[in-house]
Amino acid sequence: MSITHLQADIAIAAAVREATAIGVPMNIAVYDDGANMKAFVRMDGAFLGSADIAQNKARTAALFGFNTEALYEFVKPGGTSPGFDRTNGGLIVFAGGIPVRDGEGRLIGAIGVSGGAVAQDYQVAEAAITALAAGGFQEQPQAN
Amino acid sequence: MSITHLQADIAIAAAVREATAIGVPMNIAVYDDGANMKAFVRMDGAFLGSADIAQNKARTAALFGFNTEALYEFVKPGGTSPGFDRTNGGLIVFAGGIPVRDGEGRLIGAIGVSGGAVAQDYQVAEAAITALAAGGFQEQPQAN
Amino acid sequence: MSITHLQADIAIAAAVREATAIGVPMNIAVYDDGANMKAFVRMDGAFLGSADIAQNKARTAALFGFNTEALYEFVKPGGTSPGFDRTNGGLIVFAGGIPVRDGEGRLIGAIGVSGGAVAQDYQVAEAAITALAAGGFQEQPQAN
Amino acid sequence: MSITHLQADIAIAAAVREATAIGVPMNIAVYDDGANMKAFVRMDGAFLGSADIAQNKARTAALFGFNTEALYEFVKPGGTSPGFDRTNGGLIVFAGGIPVRDGEGRLIGAIGVSGGAVAQDYQVAEAAITALAAGGFQEQPQAN
Repeated sequence: MSITHLQADIAIAAAVREATAIGVPMNIAVYDDGANMKAFVRMDGAFLGSADIAQNKARTAALFGFNTEALYEFVKPGGTSPGFDRTNGGLIVFAGGIPVRDGEGRLIGAIGVSGGAVAQDYQVAEAAITALAAGGFQEQPQAN
Repeated sequence: MSITHLQADIAIAAAVREATAIGVPMNIAVYDDGANMKAFVRMDGAFLGSADIAQNKARTAALFGFNTEALYEFVKPGGTSPGFDRTNGGLIVFAGGIPVRDGEGRLIGAIGVSGGAVAQDYQVAEAAITALAAGGFQEQPQAN
Repeated sequence: MSITHLQADIAIAAAVREATAIGVPMNIAVYDDGANMKAFVRMDGAFLGSADIAQNKARTAALFGFNTEALYEFVKPGGTSPGFDRTNGGLIVFAGGIPVRDGEGRLIGAIGVSGGAVAQDYQVAEAAITALAAGGFQEQPQAN
Repeated sequence: MSITHLQADIAIAAAVREATAIGVPMNIAVYDDGANMKAFVRMDGAFLGSADIAQNKARTAALFGFNTEALYEFVKPGGTSPGFDRTNGGLIVFAGGIPVRDGEGRLIGAIGVSGGAVAQDYQVAEAAITALAAGGFQEQPQAN
C-alpha cells in the first residue's frame, strides 16, 4: 500500500490551512513508500530554497520510517553513524519530515514541510498527519 | 509575475478532471516563470517514470515559452540546432508541456503532463490551460 | 518582478568600483528571484575558484531572501538545522551574498561577491546594494 | 593571455547593442582561454533556457578554438567522431559560439550568444567579435 492521491490532497490541504493560520507560507511535499514524490506545493511567498528541503524531508522520512529529527541521533557528535546524513544523496536530519502509516501501522509514505522555523515546519507537518489520522476532512478538498 | 498557488490548484484540478474523464492516470506538474516547481501530483496508477517527464515538460515550456512539441523543430533531422534537447540538463521535445501566460501575454509558468499517449498528455495539459484562461472554476478547488 | 538588466549593470558597476577602490579583484554575480543567473563578471586577477562561490552566494541569498551569513545560525554548533548548508546542492553560509528588494520590500534577486576576505566580499556586495537603493547612478553604466 | 574584463565588457556591450537593434533579447556569455566564465548577461525578456546554451556555446568555442557550428562536421551523419558532442559534459554544435583571438591569432577566449534564431545568435556574436577586432569602442562602455 502506498499513500493515495486523495490522502495526499488531504495532507496538503491540512498543511496549507495550518501554515495559513500561523502566517508562514510553506513548501509541502508528500512522498510515497517508494520514496518518490506523490504531490507537492510551494505556497505563495514561501522560500524558494525550502522546496528542496521539504522534498528531502519527505524523502528522508519515507526512506527510513522515522521523523527526520530522530535521525540526528545517528550523526550527532558521538553518534553511531557519522556521515549517515550524507548517504542517499544527502538526507535531512532536523524536524519537518514525518512518516505516514496506515491503520495497521504500515509505512505508506511521508510528509515534508519547510519554510518557517523548524518548530513551525514540524507543527504544519503534524497538522497533515493529524488530518490523515482523523480519516480526512468531512468534505473532500478537491471536487475531482 | 509568477503563477500563483491558486492558479496551480486550478490547473491541476482541471487536468485531474480531464485525465479522469479519459481514464488515464497522469503526472501533472506546474512550474513558475523561474522554471522552479510550484506544484505537482502523481495520480493513483500513473506511471512512476512519467513523473520526471511531466516535470521536465513543465520546466522545458517554462524555460522557453513554447509548447514542448514546437521545440522538436530545432532538433529534427535537418533542424537548425542539433543537440538542443541535451542542453539545460536535458529537455523534452514532444507534446505535453504548455506555457502559461497572463492576460497581457507575459509568461508566468508552465504545465507539464505525462502518463498517457502523447496526444492524451497534450489534451490533459490543454484542459488545464483552458481552465486558467477561463479565469478559473466558479468554486475554488481547495477549501484553503 | 525580477531584477532587470539595468539594475544588474548598476549593481556590478558599483561593486567593481568598490573592489577597485580597495584593490581586491572580485567575482560578482547577480541572480534573479527565480535563483537563476542574471549577470556575472570575474574581474582581472580575481581568484578563479571564487567564481563558483560568488555565484552560489547570490543563488543562496535569492533562494532564502537572507544575507548568506545569517544562514550560518541554522548550521552552527547547536543550531536548529544541522546540514542545512548541504541542501539545494550546497549553499554558502558566510558573508558576501545579499538579497535585493524593490521599493515595496519584495525580493527581486540577489548579489554575490567573492574574491577577498569575507569582510571585503561583504563590503563590495553592500556597495552594489547601496547603489541600487540610491536609484542607480546619474548616468547609465553602459551605453546600450 | 586571456580575455580581459574590459574586452568582456566591450564584447557584451556590442552584443547587447546588436540584439537591441534586431529586437531579440539575448543571453550573452564570455569565457576565457581556460574555458571558464568571464562575464555573462541575460537581457530582459531573453529565454531563460537560452542562458545555459549561450554559456555552453562560449565554453565549446573556448575549448576547441572553432566556431561552434564548425564542430557539427565531426558529428553529422558520416562524420568522423560520432558522440563528440557528448564529450566534455555536452557541447553545442550549432552557431552562436565564436572564439576570440588576439592580434597574433592566439586564442584568448570565446563569445556565446543564444536567444534568437541560430542566424540571429551568430549575428549578435559576430557583432561582439567585430567590436573587439576594431580595438573596442572609442569610449569605454563602463566608467570603472
